[in-house]
Amino acid sequence: SDREVLDDISHRRYNPLRGSWILVSPHRTKRPWQGQKETPSKTSLPVFDSSCYLCPGNLRAVGDTNPAYPETFVFVNDYSAVKEDQQDYVQPESGDKSSLLLQAAGVRGKCYVICFSPSHNLTLADIPTEMIVPIIKTWTALYASHLPKSSPYYQVPAAELGITVPGDQYTYMQIFENKGAAMGCSNPHPHGQVWTTTGIPEEPSLEIQNMKEYKRKHGAGLLKDYVDLEITKEKRIVALNDHFAALCPWWAIWPFETMIICRREVHSLPELTEEEQIGLAKVISIVTKKYDNLFETNFPYSMGIHQAPLDGDPEDRKACHLHLHFVPPLLRSATVRKFLVGYELMAEPQRDITPEQAAERLRNLSGDEVYRGNL
Amino acid sequence: SDREVLDDISHRRYNPLRGSWILVSPHRTKRPWQGQKETPSKTSLPVFDSSCYLCPGNLRAVGDTNPAYPETFVFVNDYSAVKEDQQDYVQPESGDKSSLLLQAAGVRGKCYVICFSPSHNLTLADIPTEMIVPIIKTWTALYASHLPKSSPYYQVPAAELGITVPGDQYTYMQIFENKGAAMGCSNPHPHGQVWTTTGIPEEPSLEIQNMKEYKRKHGAGLLKDYVDLEITKEKRIVALNDHFAALCPWWAIWPFETMIICRREVHSLPELTEEEQIGLAKVISIVTKKYDNLFETNFPYSMGIHQAPLDGDPEDRKACHLHLHFVPPLLRSATVRKFLVGYELMAEPQRDITPEQAAERLRNLSGDEVYRGNL
Ligand SMILES: O=P(O)(O)O[C@H]1O[C@H](CO)[C@@H](O)[C@H](O)[C@H]1O
Ligand SMILES: O=P(O)(O)O[C@H]1O[C@H](CO)[C@@H](O)[C@H](O)[C@H]1O
Repeated sequence: SDREVLDDISHRRYNPLRGSWILVSPHRTKRPWQGQKETPSKTSLPVFDSSCYLCPGNLRAVGDTNPAYPETFVFVNDYSAVKEDQQDYVQPESGDKSSLLLQAAGVRGKCYVICFSPSHNLTLADIPTEMIVPIIKTWTALYASHLPKSSPYYQVPAAELGITVPGDQYTYMQIFENKGAAMGCSNPHPHGQVWTTTGIPEEPSLEIQNMKEYKRKHGAGLLKDYVDLEITKEKRIVALNDHFAALCPWWAIWPFETMIICRREVHSLPELTEEEQIGLAKVISIVTKKYDNLFETNFPYSMGIHQAPLDGDPEDRKACHLHLHFVPPLLRSATVRKFLVGYELMAEPQRDITPEQAAERLRNLSGDEVYRGNL
Repeated sequence: SDREVLDDISHRRYNPLRGSWILVSPHRTKRPWQGQKETPSKTSLPVFDSSCYLCPGNLRAVGDTNPAYPETFVFVNDYSAVKEDQQDYVQPESGDKSSLLLQAAGVRGKCYVICFSPSHNLTLADIPTEMIVPIIKTWTALYASHLPKSSPYYQVPAAELGITVPGDQYTYMQIFENKGAAMGCSNPHPHGQVWTTTGIPEEPSLEIQNMKEYKRKHGAGLLKDYVDLEITKEKRIVALNDHFAALCPWWAIWPFETMIICRREVHSLPELTEEEQIGLAKVISIVTKKYDNLFETNFPYSMGIHQAPLDGDPEDRKACHLHLHFVPPLLRSATVRKFLVGYELMAEPQRDITPEQAAERLRNLSGDEVYRGNL
């Protein structure tokens, strides 16, 4: 079968979602590792940390005080990468090739932080499924409140959300989480971010292009076809319920990269039924628990939700299929990560174990409980 | 001027070489950093380390003994990511959508390691310019010996090179260096790598596509036009001589990313004159010294050489313009790096200082001497 040959030889795999290739060298994990080691994240944190700017009742960097929130809590990032108001940029006229080679465009937007829980010491792997549902509802409310008022999914932001919707209509909303010091996260309090901008960023834009093209050519959704195919193939599936599938994609770059894909072709979070929200919460819970169990550590990752743009070409929205990406850096243990460096940056992403091997390992781990031995 | 506005506002910049955009948020370095810190690399290493598998006379992993080499030394990587011989892969026939969604192709090739110097404790920043020239000559000889025998630049590998050229003609050769633990390098002995493969990897393939398109549309070379434009603009230039320019590209992703571009439109290393080789050695020396001086540390980076493919479409070769990329992870100090994580992986690369600010800082540092205070 293809499994046996590809387990043994160096090969490239095609990512139809990005339209790009990656290099797989399955035999390469045999080499010894004498390089940098990560510090596994702290073992025991308090439920409340008086020095944490995300804990309820504490003071934030810019001087606001957090309320005593019971579930999730949203606020505008004190160090936003994009802002609602700024000067315009006009490309200067010049007689030279600047207009070709030195192109820039202003970007406006708004950045939010979402605390997932008032408890300082929990992660998505610890939070009970019933408490993950409110996080999904918060993501949904945030997305829905930033849609054009004419959208059937538009929602007035509930008072509890505590936000003022920007006066301008932005085009895209990226919801993501950086977890763990290895992923540039400086605060273990469970939280994610939301950056919403004018214009569609590179990655979703690439995906939309490829999904549109696939639909045009094959009359079906790329990710709908893909999730159905993987469910019949089984070997890359990590977790599955009636509504969502978690899998190590055929084209995964990071060692234990996974995707969570909605089994129904929905374009964005507000289209999920209550049952589907619960289905998603369950799969998130299982995947994050399996991750923690893999190397018996607080497993670092970056997670991102890809869904339809807020605004713009309606064809773009129709081509989108709600999914989440989890990209974790660890390769061999709690301390040995995969470096995407020289060859990867200069030539092509390269991975050392096959996605099938990764999926098998994750499948065999508990998704019900986190083993607390070394945590 | 554009400098003043773009120093102040969030904006996207276009990379014409990749055909992609990046997000620049100049005000964002103001946020405090409480996250992971890097360990600056060791301060004093011996000239010879008996436990180093790259030092002259020592035993390597697989059992070979290194010769007492005086300058550079090339050997086949003991843990190569690609191999000369392996089974073929044939996509299995199937009635489903596997041929669309689960595409793979075998990759063969050969991986080399190049020691830059017999001295364990030197880096490119310490090696005198005259001793960088032999490294460039080794890269050149390796590339030239892997060209088709019909190429005007083909060279029989000199006996000192100590290599057997593969029986098969490969298409692309990626020369690169990972320096420092932060870039996944596990041995401080100065060395680089060379991976040569069937097929052109993603990054050079993207660049070639864009350079071909530019030439077709504008009748000139993209990087020739670009390097000329930057020399007149001055503000992104880091180092310059008659033959090469080092600059922080308009579209840089990493904080202190630089490119070294040949001022003449040459396609590959063997086309360089002796004078140009010296010019390149000088610029490499200046850039790496400035890097070390920036944060008074042994500055980590990944470096890669982009040049014409070894084989394939002659139009591809003609579109190529020899250049080097340096991507260093550090942002604020020897211990604080830039993380390309959640937003960057899920949406779009994002940087915190402008390339003009980076270039100005690098320009103002010595490129003649490395400040040894903290090293
Ligand atoms: O080949 P090395 O030095 O063992 O390994 C290093 O460089 C390779 C090529 O960029 C990467 O794939 C590895 O992740 C990195 O640790
Ligand atoms: O926003 P934070 O958590 O301060 O910062 C982190 O996430 C951002 C978005 O992915 C990155 O740009 C930063 O490099 C990273 O440290």
